[in-house]
Amino acid sequence: MKAAYYSGDKSFTIKEDQPKEPGPGDARIKIAYCGICGTDLHVYHGSMDARVTTNRVIGHECSAVVDAIGPGVEGLAVGDPVVVRPLSHCGECAACKKGYIHVCQNLKFLGLDTEGAMQEMWTLPAHTLHKVPAEMRLDYAALIEPTAVACHDVGRAKIKEGEDVLVIGGGPIGLLVAMVARQAGGNVVISEVSDYRLEVAEKLGFQTLDPRKVNVAEEMWKRTGDKGAEVVFEVSGSKPGIETMTEAAAVRGRIVMVAIFANKPEVDMFKFFWRELELMGARVYEAADYEKAIELVVNGDIDCETLITDIQELEDITKAFQALDGNATAMKSLIKCS
Amino acid sequence: MKAAYYSGDKSFTIKEDQPKEPGPGDARIKIAYCGICGTDLHVYHGSMDARVTTNRVIGHECSAVVDAIGPGVEGLAVGDPVVVRPLSHCGECAACKKGYIHVCQNLKFLGLDTEGAMQEMWTLPAHTLHKVPAEMRLDYAALIEPTAVACHDVGRAKIKEGEDVLVIGGGPIGLLVAMVARQAGGNVVISEVSDYRLEVAEKLGFQTLDPRKVNVAEEMWKRTGDKGAEVVFEVSGSKPGIETMTEAAAVRGRIVMVAIFANKPEVDMFKFFWRELELMGARVYEAADYEKAIELVVNGDIDCETLITDIQELEDITKAFQALDGNATAMKSLIKCS
Repeated sequence: MKAAYYSGDKSFTIKEDQPKEPGPGDARIKIAYCGICGTDLHVYHGSMDARVTTNRVIGHECSAVVDAIGPGVEGLAVGDPVVVRPLSHCGECAACKKGYIHVCQNLKFLGLDTEGAMQEMWTLPAHTLHKVPAEMRLDYAALIEPTAVACHDVGRAKIKEGEDVLVIGGGPIGLLVAMVARQAGGNVVISEVSDYRLEVAEKLGFQTLDPRKVNVAEEMWKRTGDKGAEVVFEVSGSKPGIETMTEAAAVRGRIVMVAIFANKPEVDMFKFFWRELELMGARVYEAADYEKAIELVVNGDIDCETLITDIQELEDITKAFQALDGNATAMKSLIKCS
Repeated sequence: MKAAYYSGDKSFTIKEDQPKEPGPGDARIKIAYCGICGTDLHVYHGSMDARVTTNRVIGHECSAVVDAIGPGVEGLAVGDPVVVRPLSHCGECAACKKGYIHVCQNLKFLGLDTEGAMQEMWTLPAHTLHKVPAEMRLDYAALIEPTAVACHDVGRAKIKEGEDVLVIGGGPIGLLVAMVARQAGGNVVISEVSDYRLEVAEKLGFQTLDPRKVNVAEEMWKRTGDKGAEVVFEVSGSKPGIETMTEAAAVRGRIVMVAIFANKPEVDMFKFFWRELELMGARVYEAADYEKAIELVVNGDIDCETLITDIQELEDITKAFQALDGNATAMKSLIKCS
């Protein structure tokens, strides 16, 4: 079978590997599609070489079919279509003991800290698998992992029907958050600075605001009758995003930190005090977020067709990363792994 | 009657005024004691002249006895000992309509935006008054307002029995937060950089950490068996405090922003993401916080005797502010107003 090894410096090497036999509790899955995540692009750029090393199969946004099952695995059959929740927790730390296994203090992320999905066959712990309906398209199913991220983000915000929601940043995750928030009852506005992404957001039926043209926070207050946004998702990872999140938020507004900031931005703590704002970090997902994501993709609440903008063969993985890197008119690229 | 007018540039002028007759819905109260708040010190320094003006009676941490009642006031009798919840909300804004009247978008704070308590008699809306038990010492009762602040802060954190709590900053509000958090079941540690305040915190029975000697966050992780603090109160308003709050917090830890930051500090947003931290602003108080504060003072959960370090007559108000200003060995100063 073929496997794509990240070999450092924006390159992958395709190698011929032997499929691994599944040990006790494991399953072997035949990967159908694997999406390229923002994190994978960081790996590609060499920013995560210390953690990932330069001889690893990466990838975690995948759909697959069960190919073989190890001893002791129940509730799973060869041929089942599945997706992977790529987390391995220790079960021993304080966070695990409280039930927060998705933010385990020793969490391993499959496809970064271990081998991943950008290969034909992947042998991994069976407890990471969620079955998907037989009729689900497997290219669409590759979007379940990022959709589960969005479900987790929206779950943290506890959106109530009719609340005004601002999503800052209209990339793949921002759009997924917007779609999940809309399904949860939110009245969603997306702030975005790219013409292409604004166009996609509008095609998906969202109101948009362009910070190049309007003051997004002022506009939110105006549009909501001097109330502000009850919920803000900061997905842009930008300095203006950090400013807008506190300015746009209503009294007692909830801000969900989805973006990953490498540096410490300046945050308006006075507004947190003055308006009693709340900020909550959101990281990966829990099992229930996967079940919700599967339901949303099945029901068509997630417009997978619009989000998937490129599909390439495993052999062409380097080309796929090159095509996505810095591409202003791409959303989600998939690798067809088998 | 005497009234102390803030007259700008670190000075007050004592004037002879006529007590005002209470109009409909108003009461006139005879002020017993009025504490000097950090905000009052800001006024004294001239930092709030634009808001307060330089011809105003300030003060809001008071105890009093009802002296006269205007038409239409029910449930209140001349002679009742009372404290003031010095907030006036508009009732019309989005926050008020949601029931968040204490963070009304047009909130007026009595004693800053209107006349206040540093006078013999104060005529004000009767709905701002909370009755206190007849046996309560009125000097102690002057601590109910700052205790209500602490009750509100602790209420925002939803502390559960046995949780580890770090209070960063051991001034009057930090110590009150610590006492209320302890009564709520928290296992409280106070971080403080002043020898005097550390001594007071220890006298009050708290574990303390001195950032001049130890890394407070590391020490909290060590003391809690690699778990971190479930709840952190940032009361210091300092850059090291902002750093410690995210470092010391457990996975899913709740951080309450009590301090008022004039500038925007650099905040570790990555930790919010990584550990799914929560931050919540807390401002003033609600009616229930006052009732809780009264109960805690009555029950002796608040050590008023230790906190009150100075009492001066109204005529000596400038001296009282001078004595408190930059004083490393003072906690709460009261003005005896009548």
